Amino acid sequence: MAKRTVYCGLVSEQYLDQKVTLKGWVQKRRDLGGLIFIDLRDREGIVQVVFNPEESKAGWEVADQCRSEYVVEITGTVIRRDENSINPKMTTGDYEIKGEDITILNEAKTPPFSIEDDQNISDEVRLKYRYMDLRRPKMTQNMILRHRVTKSVRHFLDENDFLDIETPYLAKSTPEGARDYLVPSRVHPGHFYALPQSPQILKQLLMTAGFDRYYQIVRCFRDEDLRGDRQPEFTQIDIETSFLTAEEIQEYTEKMIAQVMKDVLDIEVSLPFPRITWDEAMERYGSDKPDTRFDMELVDVTEIASATDFKVFRMATDNGGVVKAINAKKAADHYSRKELDRLGQFVGQFGAKGLAWIKVDENGELTGPIAKFMGAVADELKVALHAEPGDVLMFAADQFLTAVTALGAVRSKVGKEMGLIDESQFNYLWVVNWPQFEYDQELGRYVSAHHPFTMPNDEDIPHLKDHPEKVYAQAYDIVLNGYELGGGSLRIHTRDLQEQVFETLGFTREEANAQFSFLLEALDYGFPPIGGIALGLDRFAMLLAGEDNIREVIAFPKNGKAADPMSDAPSTVSPLQLYELSINTTNIEE
Amino acid sequence: MAKRTVYCGLVSEQYLDQKVTLKGWVQKRRDLGGLIFIDLRDREGIVQVVFNPEESKAGWEVADQCRSEYVVEITGTVIRRDENSINPKMTTGDYEIKGEDITILNEAKTPPFSIEDDQNISDEVRLKYRYMDLRRPKMTQNMILRHRVTKSVRHFLDENDFLDIETPYLAKSTPEGARDYLVPSRVHPGHFYALPQSPQILKQLLMTAGFDRYYQIVRCFRDEDLRGDRQPEFTQIDIETSFLTAEEIQEYTEKMIAQVMKDVLDIEVSLPFPRITWDEAMERYGSDKPDTRFDMELVDVTEIASATDFKVFRMATDNGGVVKAINAKKAADHYSRKELDRLGQFVGQFGAKGLAWIKVDENGELTGPIAKFMGAVADELKVALHAEPGDVLMFAADQFLTAVTALGAVRSKVGKEMGLIDESQFNYLWVVNWPQFEYDQELGRYVSAHHPFTMPNDEDIPHLKDHPEKVYAQAYDIVLNGYELGGGSLRIHTRDLQEQVFETLGFTREEANAQFSFLLEALDYGFPPIGGIALGLDRFAMLLAGEDNIREVIAFPKNGKAADPMSDAPSTVSPLQLYELSINTTNIEE
Repeated sequence: MAKRTVYCGLVSEQYLDQKVTLKGWVQKRRDLGGLIFIDLRDREGIVQVVFNPEESKAGWEVADQCRSEYVVEITGTVIRRDENSINPKMTTGDYEIKGEDITILNEAKTPPFSIEDDQNISDEVRLKYRYMDLRRPKMTQNMILRHRVTKSVRHFLDENDFLDIETPYLAKSTPEGARDYLVPSRVHPGHFYALPQSPQILKQLLMTAGFDRYYQIVRCFRDEDLRGDRQPEFTQIDIETSFLTAEEIQEYTEKMIAQVMKDVLDIEVSLPFPRITWDEAMERYGSDKPDTRFDMELVDVTEIASATDFKVFRMATDNGGVVKAINAKKAADHYSRKELDRLGQFVGQFGAKGLAWIKVDENGELTGPIAKFMGAVADELKVALHAEPGDVLMFAADQFLTAVTALGAVRSKVGKEMGLIDESQFNYLWVVNWPQFEYDQELGRYVSAHHPFTMPNDEDIPHLKDHPEKVYAQAYDIVLNGYELGGGSLRIHTRDLQEQVFETLGFTREEANAQFSFLLEALDYGFPPIGGIALGLDRFAMLLAGEDNIREVIAFPKNGKAADPMSDAPSTVSPLQLYELSINTTNIEE
Repeated sequence: MAKRTVYCGLVSEQYLDQKVTLKGWVQKRRDLGGLIFIDLRDREGIVQVVFNPEESKAGWEVADQCRSEYVVEITGTVIRRDENSINPKMTTGDYEIKGEDITILNEAKTPPFSIEDDQNISDEVRLKYRYMDLRRPKMTQNMILRHRVTKSVRHFLDENDFLDIETPYLAKSTPEGARDYLVPSRVHPGHFYALPQSPQILKQLLMTAGFDRYYQIVRCFRDEDLRGDRQPEFTQIDIETSFLTAEEIQEYTEKMIAQVMKDVLDIEVSLPFPRITWDEAMERYGSDKPDTRFDMELVDVTEIASATDFKVFRMATDNGGVVKAINAKKAADHYSRKELDRLGQFVGQFGAKGLAWIKVDENGELTGPIAKFMGAVADELKVALHAEPGDVLMFAADQFLTAVTALGAVRSKVGKEMGLIDESQFNYLWVVNWPQFEYDQELGRYVSAHHPFTMPNDEDIPHLKDHPEKVYAQAYDIVLNGYELGGGSLRIHTRDLQEQVFETLGFTREEANAQFSFLLEALDYGFPPIGGIALGLDRFAMLLAGEDNIREVIAFPKNGKAADPMSDAPSTVSPLQLYELSINTTNIEE
């Protein structure tokens, strides 16, 4: 084998008239007027090679035998194409290779699908033949983009004195949080490791060990039911620091993101990113991860609504609830009554009882089933919502959280459906000052909004016992285009406060000790003030690649049933393996 | 909190007479003549701070309350120490900080051991309080060194067009190789993922996907009984390439190692590294990972031995075996007869029946129990072994592999015991041209010396069926100071050959298909010629740090029973967790 001179996709002016050796896959072979044309592909792109039997009989004969996806080595001279055969769609389209030698390194059966972008292939087939799916240019580029994101992140953190320290994957099961993946222990029958949901506690311990600044690009595991952009394992850019303020941590994070945007997409983002509080995000966008690429903000019309006779509004306002509205500008033609009913059903999943709406007709008059109730306040409403002919006003009336969440979801949906979103934009946003707890109706107790180690605001600590709902935390999420890209906080660094928070979460002292004794103990031995953040690498790469599913930026993802159709994982194992692990399988008749 | 100006350990001339803010842990607080001296420690080192009650009464009072491991923030001015109080043992020993303000950020109980190097602490206590063990300067530096190794490796590979691509940890169980860690699937009762022993097959698939050059610093898992430098999970620098020769892959690997040596230890190593074949390594050193920091090579004395009447020698030589010898120079005084008997027992674990020995007395005469049998060949033997007064000649007589392995182990042991090893040296060595198979007596069949995807030498392929022992592979190990640092090979890239190798390994076609159908199938769809290598990061970092156990370069390792005394993993889990995973525990009475 000769050495490769250049990747196919990087053939350029500097190689003109030079002899080059290329290695790659036959994208296409055509026989045109006695010449054999081969489009040769490697990870960097495609270049055209021409074999002329008059000039290289032997080469022409081998080229003639080639079929799609054959692996070949080609030697030839880079020449400029004729004016009229230049292909502006190919980055190498100004050139072609005058083929001299060609060696078939391996043959290929006809692949189950064509190796091109925009093929309509089922997800199962793509996953079963993932090694061929990854040959498609978009997928290859996605993996390269992900590599570049990782590289840029590491470079930034290395330069800023962060230490890359590995934490174990065979860890301890912690019931708080999502469901763990368990790993039976052969040496300790009846005992299990858990694959970590995140290295949260260990990175805190690395801080008390004195490492000052830690990072790790680390796999995390959650055995949860899978949604569109969830995978059983995912990758986190995990960061922890000592002695920094929340603002300083945010500043490092922003700078890191700006570096990635520059390195990977050559986009300059302006810093600092906007910051809004969680309260304000809910108030204005009905979301803790608002997409700020379009407006259509929520407007509070509680006072106006309470002056109407519309029962739905009055029930909400009389019971301490709110009435929130959005104005879908010029949406009247988009949304028929039927479409609006569909939106009404849609909000049901957020616990809202329905979506009230009013259209503004060409004369500026309010129309629709509830318009008649607005009589006295119609003008006031139009002013509050900047209503103009052709607009659709949509209302949610309920307790605050339910109303804004439902309407926030409608806002996102309408924003997409109305094409209000500029897909070329990257809108970063900090959402700060989160509630410390959420009340979980099912469990009948408070749970952590982030995790139990989050530091409450100093002034809210007195409320821990009696009014957990009033406790806000020194926690912050970084949001990109409506996605939660990451979240972080300062952490509790004193034992007393940590025990108080466990108590609020309903742990007895014994339970807290059983699970977290090593952390609690560590708090006694000189624990520094710490804080950190974790960003979802898969999601980050997905958004930068312009994809809408993290599977598109993961080399070997699982399908919707947490399985890999290619390797057939998970699979059955031998009885001996189970015996050695001291486990049996049960109810496998399913 | 004020911002830190500089790490304690980095206080230097450039900060002289400047006001600085430091954050760290109180290493020591002393009260000398009314002054309070605090040695303040952070990850970069220690600096001395002095509080004078005449100059800062408030600061002095706080400093007076400090105890070991308190976390404090100190502001003061860097001054030069008096000539006679300079401490040459500290990197900051020319300076001290005139303390002004001090804030206690957190208190600390008295730690279970003192935070200093060279403490005699049990491994269990070190692991239980790992976050404090890691505060000891040597451990902190080990983690920093490991970070720098990783960073250097990544930088080199990034610069050389390798793509960092992540492979899944929830993978498929493959019975070939070591024991798998299994992960029960909740969604697929009775089915299990396996934690990968290495991403071997997946990295091969990444090559057929066209990524050309892959790397990953990746965790691997083996559920084996633990030895000194084994851990249930370990980290591998995993590399795979397309279209390169074995020599080209070795060349990249060497350059990468040279870069790490330069970046981390500031040592220039000369390239290329020496290469010897596996046959030669066994012949000369009795080891496939020879320590070349000292000589004492094995000498073949079969011919000489066959001319003696010594029964042990004759039995070996008459049965097609060999007699190998080493000369332990000037070891006669070191090794009493009792000590030599101990060595004789030691070789038993390598299957040898014993170790024959002869001392050379001050007159150059052979002495010891078997000397009398050497009569006729004594001179010849002395010449062959360069025997001089005071030497000890040691012999192993057996079938080739047993004899050289046993004597190779003696060579290593004697080399250490005689202090022949220059610990400051880093001797890298390639061992190439490995046997493709080893015969496993227990299994009664051939097993792969590396793994079943290793490419045999072209000329040996005809022997696959009838003489597997004659098949050598395009495989190479990189050895450092007697440790296997990594191993690699070219891989099989045609289905036919891969199936032949599976057959030699005793797989039926059905078994091969059940386990490896996706790889076999992939070989049909345009598989390029590939090869790669994997290096043990833990071991690499261990050797560069001058440690002799990989635990010393792993932040949170497991103990000898694969458990973590700190977090108490593995642990019992709730019946609900097991129920959801459709498993039961059995025989847990142990």
